[in-house]
Amino acid sequence: MSPEEFRRRGHAVVDWIADYHSRIESFPVLSQVQPGQIRSMLPAKAPEQGEAFDKILSDIDRIVLPGITHWQSPNFFGYFPANASGPAILGDLLSSGLGVQGMLWSTSPACTELETHVLDWLVPMLGLPEKFLSAQSGGVIQDTASSATLVALLAARERATEFASNSKGCDGRLVAYCSTQAHSSIEKAVKIAGIGADNLRHIEADENFAMRPDALARQIESDKKAGLLPCFVCATVGTTSSNAIDPVEEIGRICQEHNLWLHVDSAMSGTAALCPEFRYINKGVEGADSYCFNPHKWMFTNFDCNCFYVADRKHLIKTLSVLPEYLRNQATESGAVIDYRDWHIQLGRRFRSLKLWFVIRHYGVEGLQHHIREHVRLAQQFAAWVREDLRFDLVAPCELNLVCFRLREGDSANQQLMENLNKSGDLFLTHTKLGEKFTLRFCVGQTNTQAHHVEKAWQRIQEEAAKLGNS
Amino acid sequence: MSPEEFRRRGHAVVDWIADYHSRIESFPVLSQVQPGQIRSMLPAKAPEQGEAFDKILSDIDRIVLPGITHWQSPNFFGYFPANASGPAILGDLLSSGLGVQGMLWSTSPACTELETHVLDWLVPMLGLPEKFLSAQSGGVIQDTASSATLVALLAARERATEFASNSKGCDGRLVAYCSTQAHSSIEKAVKIAGIGADNLRHIEADENFAMRPDALARQIESDKKAGLLPCFVCATVGTTSSNAIDPVEEIGRICQEHNLWLHVDSAMSGTAALCPEFRYINKGVEGADSYCFNPHKWMFTNFDCNCFYVADRKHLIKTLSVLPEYLRNQATESGAVIDYRDWHIQLGRRFRSLKLWFVIRHYGVEGLQHHIREHVRLAQQFAAWVREDLRFDLVAPCELNLVCFRLREGDSANQQLMENLNKSGDLFLTHTKLGEKFTLRFCVGQTNTQAHHVEKAWQRIQEEAAKLGNS
Repeated sequence: MSPEEFRRRGHAVVDWIADYHSRIESFPVLSQVQPGQIRSMLPAKAPEQGEAFDKILSDIDRIVLPGITHWQSPNFFGYFPANASGPAILGDLLSSGLGVQGMLWSTSPACTELETHVLDWLVPMLGLPEKFLSAQSGGVIQDTASSATLVALLAARERATEFASNSKGCDGRLVAYCSTQAHSSIEKAVKIAGIGADNLRHIEADENFAMRPDALARQIESDKKAGLLPCFVCATVGTTSSNAIDPVEEIGRICQEHNLWLHVDSAMSGTAALCPEFRYINKGVEGADSYCFNPHKWMFTNFDCNCFYVADRKHLIKTLSVLPEYLRNQATESGAVIDYRDWHIQLGRRFRSLKLWFVIRHYGVEGLQHHIREHVRLAQQFAAWVREDLRFDLVAPCELNLVCFRLREGDSANQQLMENLNKSGDLFLTHTKLGEKFTLRFCVGQTNTQAHHVEKAWQRIQEEAAKLGNS
Repeated sequence: MSPEEFRRRGHAVVDWIADYHSRIESFPVLSQVQPGQIRSMLPAKAPEQGEAFDKILSDIDRIVLPGITHWQSPNFFGYFPANASGPAILGDLLSSGLGVQGMLWSTSPACTELETHVLDWLVPMLGLPEKFLSAQSGGVIQDTASSATLVALLAARERATEFASNSKGCDGRLVAYCSTQAHSSIEKAVKIAGIGADNLRHIEADENFAMRPDALARQIESDKKAGLLPCFVCATVGTTSSNAIDPVEEIGRICQEHNLWLHVDSAMSGTAALCPEFRYINKGVEGADSYCFNPHKWMFTNFDCNCFYVADRKHLIKTLSVLPEYLRNQATESGAVIDYRDWHIQLGRRFRSLKLWFVIRHYGVEGLQHHIREHVRLAQQFAAWVREDLRFDLVAPCELNLVCFRLREGDSANQQLMENLNKSGDLFLTHTKLGEKFTLRFCVGQTNTQAHHVEKAWQRIQEEAAKLGNS
């Protein structure tokens, strides 16, 4: 495709996306297709001859759109958001257009230096400790919080075994800790890292679904007495189920006492710290060895973009560094540059800081704060409505943008309510279990969600609840 | 940013990319900046107020471009290519615009089904065994070959230990195998997986830098006698150093005999199998438990896009599956759908098959074949010129698109030649060591590389070699 054809086709694709966002509320939020329905519209074989671009693009409407669950709809309240924005999409487009590899500083210095710089910007923006600045250690963009947890765990594993696990393999004695409410990626990470799921302790949570530090301390002591080697704690600031905030400061003290690596997973809620009034969520993060949050969840930066910081980068780099001859170069050997390939699982890496840079510059700090405040305000408003409606209970504290609630009836009524709402296509929300009970989650975080979307959602929830009550 | 502003800004960004590709040959291929130079142009703090989009976009020229090594230049012959194309960039743009998560079938059925379907298309396109089709097992898009190797190794680890490593952790007895020429990601993977670098055997290579199966068999037997548990072999079809092709068929027989998992890493060269005349490189792949190649290297699909296939998906899924309540849904529980989150490290996933679908449809199979053939022809032409020039030696067999060569003088002359060429900005090439000797690598694979680029590159190499000879 020549540059001139790219220009023409590119304009058409941009127009398609602009139109899609204009009409996004006309689609059912949750895709209504059946398994196999999308595939049944696709030809069994790849075409021998090239096809016209117009035809390819028109298949987005015909084939793809029916199979889309519209994460960018302002009526999407499910899971955690994966929000995006114009500047992010266009920054990412530039990254695709430049098509560089950032595995080494030398393979595109701007890719490394802009990333280091923007991650430094975020440290004071979020009120994070200065030890995360690149002058002292630094940050890196990972794809997801799952990968951030994994590399934090690996660095912890190696620090605890003085790099013996890297050379000889694990020996079954390492132990890791998180709360019963922590994300499933921690269990996945301990499996991947050769530590084993049996050696992950799920520490009990308190009535607010936050980790109990006394229980953590007791478990660590018991494991040490049993001859095991505790190495890693993952504390969560904003759990997936209920947005619970673990007591990071107390957990940090325990980690320091026992020399455990503390990783703070703030994937969703970390963005709230942009606003001084919510910055309390970072209390205790100064005691963390690593920290991450996802601009691709709630900071208007399209997937994938996880910002991961370490307090002492040498453990991380020594854990993940392998330097074959074909990657040697003068800049690396001078020691004057960062080579991010040593900071994550993959070797190749995309120029992901461009989209983050575009977002921060387009909104400015004040613009970002404005949208976060508005999302929190809308969630709080929704929680207040739930609180006033005698048919419903609020099931967990609601401090930020996630509301956990349920009908006072049994699990099946709640499940039915959720299914009826999602089937209607008017909005989309998902569930969890809290205290063994089926609980609805309503998360406000999509870029374009406004007051009237939340109002209408609550109205629809009330209507569907009433229908259930009458049946 | 409103849809209408997105439309306007989006056109400007598309225009910028079209212009960039039109003038790409006017830039030095290798960025000429010094460490810290890009950062010194960036303000110390993020802006408080949002900035105008025009200003942000103009900084791409002012700040970013000097720090770019132009991987998309037709004069880029370094490393392996990370090529791209118009349809890929636009497919990826649509993925950003749709902004969906594909972690579960239900979170956007089209994202899962299109991926499954396009990966099925590629099986006959590359002459891969039918056991890789989704009807029997299936494929998935990973970010990189590093991740593909890692998940293959993990599945191998669990198959060998009957899932005990996942639950209890590794015990130091597992052993993995690759050749001395295999990619560094395998060493990284054995470290990550808790197997340990000491338990990765680098099997000696023959005079063509391919793994010696007799040496592999001996090593496996010796490890078994020592009470160890051999579990995994990575064979490479097209090594990074020299494009060497391991004897997959013989390696497969050995793996079968000893019940080892065979992973075939065809990251770079796999694409060549699009052409029937090069399909011999897949000889023996029918004995593999898993296989991968990277459309983001040589198949015009921008990073990241690695196609990974398994012969029996149940080991992979059982190894990586963790199902928390908040991800439960009817479609998953019906068993009628694929949830790709169980096929890789991350939970979140982008709609990456769109770009691959666009590329295959835009070029058609014949179009893809045409470009691959042309790249191979140009590399062979280059190799012929090297062969005829008495100052140079060809250092490795050249079957496809990589030429390994060196001046007959010592290492320092070759290093100087490479540095002078790269400093000139006229072309970019990189090095490796083969038989302990500093060797230049010339890889033809950038989408827009044509005969005159290769001719000019050879002319510049001759000129710089002559200058060195005279000094």
